[in-house]
Amino acid sequence: MSMQRLIADYVVPGEGDGTIIANGAIDIDTATGRIVAVGSIDELGEAADAVTMIGGALMPGLVNAHAHGPMTLVRSAGDGLPLMQWLAEGVWPREGRLTPDDVVVGMQLASCEMLLAGVTTSVEMYAFEDAVAQAIETTGARAQVMAGVLGAICPTPESFSARLDTVSTFCAKFSDPEALITGGFGPHSAYDLGPDRLTELAAAAASAEAMIHIHLEETSGEREQILAAHGRPATQILAEAGVLDQPTVAAHGVWLDDHDLALLADASTTLVHCPMSNLKLGSGIANIAAWKAAGVGRAVGTDGVASNDNLNMWEDLRLAALLARGTSHDPAAVSAAAAFALATKEGAAAIGFDDLGELRAGAWADIIRVDLDQPSFAPGLDEDRFANIVFAGTAAAVTDVWVAGNQVVAQRQLTAIDLDHIMDKAKNIGQRLAAD
Amino acid sequence: MSMQRLIADYVVPGEGDGTIIANGAIDIDTATGRIVAVGSIDELGEAADAVTMIGGALMPGLVNAHAHGPMTLVRSAGDGLPLMQWLAEGVWPREGRLTPDDVVVGMQLASCEMLLAGVTTSVEMYAFEDAVAQAIETTGARAQVMAGVLGAICPTPESFSARLDTVSTFCAKFSDPEALITGGFGPHSAYDLGPDRLTELAAAAASAEAMIHIHLEETSGEREQILAAHGRPATQILAEAGVLDQPTVAAHGVWLDDHDLALLADASTTLVHCPMSNLKLGSGIANIAAWKAAGVGRAVGTDGVASNDNLNMWEDLRLAALLARGTSHDPAAVSAAAAFALATKEGAAAIGFDDLGELRAGAWADIIRVDLDQPSFAPGLDEDRFANIVFAGTAAAVTDVWVAGNQVVAQRQLTAIDLDHIMDKAKNIGQRLAAD
Repeated sequence: MSMQRLIADYVVPGEGDGTIIANGAIDIDTATGRIVAVGSIDELGEAADAVTMIGGALMPGLVNAHAHGPMTLVRSAGDGLPLMQWLAEGVWPREGRLTPDDVVVGMQLASCEMLLAGVTTSVEMYAFEDAVAQAIETTGARAQVMAGVLGAICPTPESFSARLDTVSTFCAKFSDPEALITGGFGPHSAYDLGPDRLTELAAAAASAEAMIHIHLEETSGEREQILAAHGRPATQILAEAGVLDQPTVAAHGVWLDDHDLALLADASTTLVHCPMSNLKLGSGIANIAAWKAAGVGRAVGTDGVASNDNLNMWEDLRLAALLARGTSHDPAAVSAAAAFALATKEGAAAIGFDDLGELRAGAWADIIRVDLDQPSFAPGLDEDRFANIVFAGTAAAVTDVWVAGNQVVAQRQLTAIDLDHIMDKAKNIGQRLAAD
Repeated sequence: MSMQRLIADYVVPGEGDGTIIANGAIDIDTATGRIVAVGSIDELGEAADAVTMIGGALMPGLVNAHAHGPMTLVRSAGDGLPLMQWLAEGVWPREGRLTPDDVVVGMQLASCEMLLAGVTTSVEMYAFEDAVAQAIETTGARAQVMAGVLGAICPTPESFSARLDTVSTFCAKFSDPEALITGGFGPHSAYDLGPDRLTELAAAAASAEAMIHIHLEETSGEREQILAAHGRPATQILAEAGVLDQPTVAAHGVWLDDHDLALLADASTTLVHCPMSNLKLGSGIANIAAWKAAGVGRAVGTDGVASNDNLNMWEDLRLAALLARGTSHDPAAVSAAAAFALATKEGAAAIGFDDLGELRAGAWADIIRVDLDQPSFAPGLDEDRFANIVFAGTAAAVTDVWVAGNQVVAQRQLTAIDLDHIMDKAKNIGQRLAAD
């Protein structure tokens, strides 16, 4: 066993209570990619095989629980347009020109951006799932790749069934829960697919023993449309179709009512809050306090960068806390520790990981280092340090990143991939997609 | 006349319409500190005395219209406590121990942080105004220093009058409108001072021909308290006291009603939106669309870093746009250009500058350079560039900063002051303030 010890000014275990350990250390078993011990350097015993004095603060990597990575290629397109016009004029025409090779580049760009920002895990929902997985393998990030199932690209029952078969095959290929990449089903939404197709999809996911990731009640219009068409809300339709019988994660949930939340809680379905995207597109503000009160597991995500416009989870986790405080008129509504947990331990649990998002013995060694030597972290008293990091933390403050013990970012440089090369390729593709 | 030309990949004039000029240039008269010409390099004529090919995007410096810079020394203190407990336990005990020398360091730290983030102008409201001005002079930033007038530190009528005399003297010292630092009166609020003292203060400000900067309706409790005590809202009290007869800027304005807004509009009093602080403290969300509809000038500010926790105006200008979109359910409510204007041209106008926040001939050469060579700005199509910068811009992307033509940040380093030294001093002071 090869044991590596990282020693820092602070270790932030992310236990959910805002604990920080001054002069802390983490022992990593690089063979398994898991943490062996965490504590102050005084508490830990014999040194490891290799010791790195790295300074700064070591923290769990952030978890982005809802992303469409390849949408980096349409970053910021059509900003400010009303939702359907934004999709119809800003996004879809460009996305319609995407090739699998493009998707590899777009996902590589997204994965680079996330790792450099300290996001070690993302949940990706997109078509071209093989390209998405292939791209992430080149950066060393951890991801759930949820293969998109969209009604529009399956015009016939046969094509829909064929798509489910393809996704099932993909899930079988990425079914090892210990691997960096796992596969799943990514049905777009209840309004896109409808009850019958969702029932067929839930059965396929059950056969494949795969997770499901779906959009749910992002806009009020979507809720009204479903109620008008089916006489019951989307959550009820998902429950009847068997979708909620699978381990399912639903993104957005802005317009869910208490009855919907009770259904989700009963089924152990979890929700992903995408506060930046929901604001930017004018969708609204999800009531994540109600989610918690109903017993629904919670995570936070960026959504795609056409509606964000970056993959910087620091801003999203901060916004999750700030919106909950501002709308409840209660500054104690979400503590700094609770906000950080949403993007680490609690968020990881919500998407099915019980060994991620926390620095403790046995957990994955998905670790980031934050440089504290900058004005927004000064004066930096120990008693204020945790809140300071959470509320003033930035992507640019992240200097080093490990995923399963493998260092993927070192001194702000990606170790496995040439970012400049990817950015050049993305620029060429972006221009081609936007051309008339 | 010494003319300097900066040549960049893009010049973003900040005219309020999202225009960007590819292969742009800015000619600066370094003797006056003002811009002489802006255009594409093809449009501009003979070269200047000195030409710098700097690449990236040149943009107007950001304007932070409500700050308490020295509060860097209590950064992140007491996060998550209810408002009065936060002040009473987290902030005031530490602030009560401040000396003028401490305030110099705290304001230097704030000024460094702001310049490095591309904030070239701030409106500072704090006691120890001489220390605040002295600190800002060491960094080269532009500021309005509004000398705090707080009821609690003026227990008698005589001490209050003496304080007004002191502030009048300060304003006379900093009365040159062409200077980097101008002085003004910073009465805390209507609830702190009451009608009679505000009347006395307004008369003093009128004699001094000075601006007034005041807090107004930050919380619902404040509004209720004023109504209960005086039978009329704070805005009415300010109008009756003559405060609104002066050029006055009021911060927060979360709970103003239409009648209040009409009063403010009639008086040309302007409002500063502090979205991050208002959310963090649970104060609420100001309706800046209503401000605009009423004809009230608008700016954006960070507030102090005990309630933010940084001085990164990029996050605040973005939040201003996002909250307006999210609460109105209209993605077109505030465009990227409109959001940027709030933190540049429109914000500068609201605090009394008609020659700031915009890159055009005759305006102050307060300019920032944004490095576009990073993943969150890729692929970077010209047509999406402006929205991309506004919605993914970060303090860390700012590499160079000029104030009145003087380069105060060069390649992410402050030119006039040793930041490490300031951070060391701030740490020692912060620890002393927090000690029991």
